[in-house]
Amino acid sequence: MIRITLIGSGNVAQHLIKAFTKSEAVEIVQVFSRKKEALLPLIDSDKIVSDYNALKESDLFIIAVSDNAISEVSSQIPFQNCLVAHTSGTASLDTLDSKNRRSVFYPLQTFSKNKAIDFSVIPMCLEAENPVDFDLLEKVARCISNAVFSISSEQRKALHVAAVFVNNFTNHLYQIGQEICSEHQVPFEVLKPLIQETAEKIKTLDPVDAQTGPAKRNDSNTIDAHLDYLTNENQKNIYKILTQSIQNNGKKL
Amino acid sequence: MIRITLIGSGNVAQHLIKAFTKSEAVEIVQVFSRKKEALLPLIDSDKIVSDYNALKESDLFIIAVSDNAISEVSSQIPFQNCLVAHTSGTASLDTLDSKNRRSVFYPLQTFSKNKAIDFSVIPMCLEAENPVDFDLLEKVARCISNAVFSISSEQRKALHVAAVFVNNFTNHLYQIGQEICSEHQVPFEVLKPLIQETAEKIKTLDPVDAQTGPAKRNDSNTIDAHLDYLTNENQKNIYKILTQSIQNNGKKL
Repeated sequence: MIRITLIGSGNVAQHLIKAFTKSEAVEIVQVFSRKKEALLPLIDSDKIVSDYNALKESDLFIIAVSDNAISEVSSQIPFQNCLVAHTSGTASLDTLDSKNRRSVFYPLQTFSKNKAIDFSVIPMCLEAENPVDFDLLEKVARCISNAVFSISSEQRKALHVAAVFVNNFTNHLYQIGQEICSEHQVPFEVLKPLIQETAEKIKTLDPVDAQTGPAKRNDSNTIDAHLDYLTNENQKNIYKILTQSIQNNGKKL
Repeated sequence: MIRITLIGSGNVAQHLIKAFTKSEAVEIVQVFSRKKEALLPLIDSDKIVSDYNALKESDLFIIAVSDNAISEVSSQIPFQNCLVAHTSGTASLDTLDSKNRRSVFYPLQTFSKNKAIDFSVIPMCLEAENPVDFDLLEKVARCISNAVFSISSEQRKALHVAAVFVNNFTNHLYQIGQEICSEHQVPFEVLKPLIQETAEKIKTLDPVDAQTGPAKRNDSNTIDAHLDYLTNENQKNIYKILTQSIQNNGKKL
């Protein structure tokens, strides 16, 4: 049984508590949180502590707090040379206090508070300072997920930037689609199956092979008609830049 | 039994043939195509014709050809005052020859040749010149789909522009994500669950409520770090414009 201590009470911490609770190979020793109430539905109240000095020893301390709190929290852990991981996609390994063995346990997913998550398909991106610690992280990750990857801090930076494109920016394009619909009294529902299929397609096709549309076809009549149609300068600008980018595909500008 | 004639042999025509063949309420009278071979696996060869004068009368002629051929094809139909529909998201109703009753039968989806499609969830966007014709279109559409909408030519224009954002441009963002990954030896597989979840989320949340990330949080440290990290000027430019757009959300620029 691997003994785990979680620090934090936000989305990631809560989803991890739920996932670890289902596994028989790990035991949650304690959860550190200043907001006990948020965790009461998830774990026995006597396992929740809000004083660092009440922390017991553990095989792995997972710090699931906002990026700018990681450093401070890691220095508060009242032990030395124990294994500590943060869960951030952006913070580097050395954000953690060097008095302990540092590692990263980063679930690459977008977590919403009230939406259940199937952890088994969430990519777990792991990094450790030595192979023995990596092995332990990997064992823990495999208790909750079937998709476990070794990702260095440098690779994690790339992943996080890429994630901004495929998640944050994509969602913003959905929003623009919804705005255009609502300006013309079209229910956004009409577009939802297309959105699902667009995501579905790249399970089996490379995005470059899945690309369709006026930009891909160099159909300047349709592109001009669309630009004429858009009245919002911001939408027009995004339309132009992404159309150009598709047309220049492969060329580094 | 509603009698339908299809004109065309491309992706849309082929998917429609498959969908109509499954329905017991419609009968495919004939399919017009100059490329007989493509259709042989889908329909009896004696139903395929390549001479307009061989066309029999029918309750509905569906023209599923490229936009620039619709006008010419519709004028070749050797009948008058019959119901004719095109399947285009962009062509207006009056692209069709006015000797017949004009209509639109537009399945809003991205069709790939070798990928099976569940037609029942595809939004069918219908338009007709009179209510009786609309009723017939609607009956036909309901034979193959549960999502049937009345969409005017004006609304269809908006939908098509919106579809470019949520499909073409979104897919291009996936491609950029893949490029960033491959430049840094990260398997694109790591991002795929995030892509699926991003699309999944807006089934229940409005995109504006699903928005997360550094732009949404006005986290200028992370934004600057990402812009520093990107070396491709095109990617940098797209990052800036979409970040700004998220930050200015709701303001018309």
